[in-house]
Amino acid sequence: MRRIKLEVAYDGTNYCGWQLQSGHLTVEAVLNKALSELLKEEVAVIGASRTDSGVHAKGNVAVFDTNSLIPSEKISYAVNQRLPEDVKVQSSVEIPLEFHPRRVKSKKTYEYCILNRNILLPTERLYTTFIYNDLDVKAMQEAASYLVGEHDFKSFCSVKTQVTDTVRTIYSLEVSKKKDIITIRVTGNGFLYNMVRIIAGTLIEVGRGAYPPQKVKGMLEGCDRNLAGPTAPAKGLTLIKIEYDEENLLNNNYDIK
Amino acid sequence: MRRIKLEVAYDGTNYCGWQLQSGHLTVEAVLNKALSELLKEEVAVIGASRTDSGVHAKGNVAVFDTNSLIPSEKISYAVNQRLPEDVKVQSSVEIPLEFHPRRVKSKKTYEYCILNRNILLPTERLYTTFIYNDLDVKAMQEAASYLVGEHDFKSFCSVKTQVTDTVRTIYSLEVSKKKDIITIRVTGNGFLYNMVRIIAGTLIEVGRGAYPPQKVKGMLEGCDRNLAGPTAPAKGLTLIKIEYDEENLLNNNYDIK
Repeated sequence: MRRIKLEVAYDGTNYCGWQLQSGHLTVEAVLNKALSELLKEEVAVIGASRTDSGVHAKGNVAVFDTNSLIPSEKISYAVNQRLPEDVKVQSSVEIPLEFHPRRVKSKKTYEYCILNRNILLPTERLYTTFIYNDLDVKAMQEAASYLVGEHDFKSFCSVKTQVTDTVRTIYSLEVSKKKDIITIRVTGNGFLYNMVRIIAGTLIEVGRGAYPPQKVKGMLEGCDRNLAGPTAPAKGLTLIKIEYDEENLLNNNYDIK
Repeated sequence: MRRIKLEVAYDGTNYCGWQLQSGHLTVEAVLNKALSELLKEEVAVIGASRTDSGVHAKGNVAVFDTNSLIPSEKISYAVNQRLPEDVKVQSSVEIPLEFHPRRVKSKKTYEYCILNRNILLPTERLYTTFIYNDLDVKAMQEAASYLVGEHDFKSFCSVKTQVTDTVRTIYSLEVSKKKDIITIRVTGNGFLYNMVRIIAGTLIEVGRGAYPPQKVKGMLEGCDRNLAGPTAPAKGLTLIKIEYDEENLLNNNYDIK
């Protein structure tokens, strides 16, 4: 028995998110089916991030166990022959059997993209949120700076969460603009339910001038979802990568969060 | 009666090209319907470039005549309310009644995008062609340089064309790479049927090493479609802009091509 770690990229447009849901097309279901057919055994992947309906990924992580003798590096190429164009495995490597992609400490990076121009550009519509008000990027950058560090992000978490410890660390949160696209890039040790989309929604409100950048300090302190901005649409969000450092991977250093 | 010039952007993925075709969804049909409903009169646009099925546009041009009193600049905003997300009018201005978008001289710019990496990235698949062989960008740039200028592009034209004069001028043809995306950007005074896609297909073959860059000189001289490379897929192609200079527009300086 070997455990294989996959990096998985997908266009979330046509999927009801990552997680298996009876009667719905999900990335997990598509992966399980393709891997099971390829390896001729029942495969059930464990995903690192159960992305929401419509969210995209360039590097989500999933693991599964197999008795197959296919060299681990070849699995990505072989399974891609059986996957649709909107889900492709980027790499496959063997890892210790104890490795669990949600329990081992990691750094996750997401990007949230905003198309900021007068009129919607159709070829950008699937991977950005369209905002026609001219956003103040400097104000968004200032607001972002207050969110970096270890904080209780309760105000930036959907009330639907079942998590009770809402303290997380954001290592970096950058807002940049290139032509008509504003990109919010965030790296942290973990993200609460809808946290990146609520951060994006809040920064968009700051960019519009709905409230001053400093107001996000009070949002953090208040620990109340009603204080932060709206949840920005899913389609602007892409999970870029999940990094496990090798030491954690070998020592099986479980993250209590 | 006024003549209105529109700049039209669209995602060609779900369209059978620009031109009206009974029983098929086309950009022209969608525009005619939305404009007719908005202006409460029968509208029939005349397009500058009848892009093929699957080709995208950021700035195709179309004109139509109207008796409506809506200020010309407001038409774009108003018609966008009635257009789907994958077709949006970027601007609308009044122009002389004599202006015909295919007869007045213009400069057209297209981009052809190639995703050049080991494994397909789903979020890029709709607007690029995926090539997993590592392409030699320098060789592609050299090959491109031989195509710049006034030439008989018969070898770079679909045999299905009805055009007899196959001389065209390419003002610039640049190949650049940024991360995994190779962009071929070409500006000319007009393009033959499939010309940009055949240029792209030929440059891809050069990039693969199938033949040396110098070979495109012979392709031009031979005036035979069989000499040039294959027609690259439609989805990698985007019509970026069409520029009419004001002098031509006012003097109604008809292009004989």
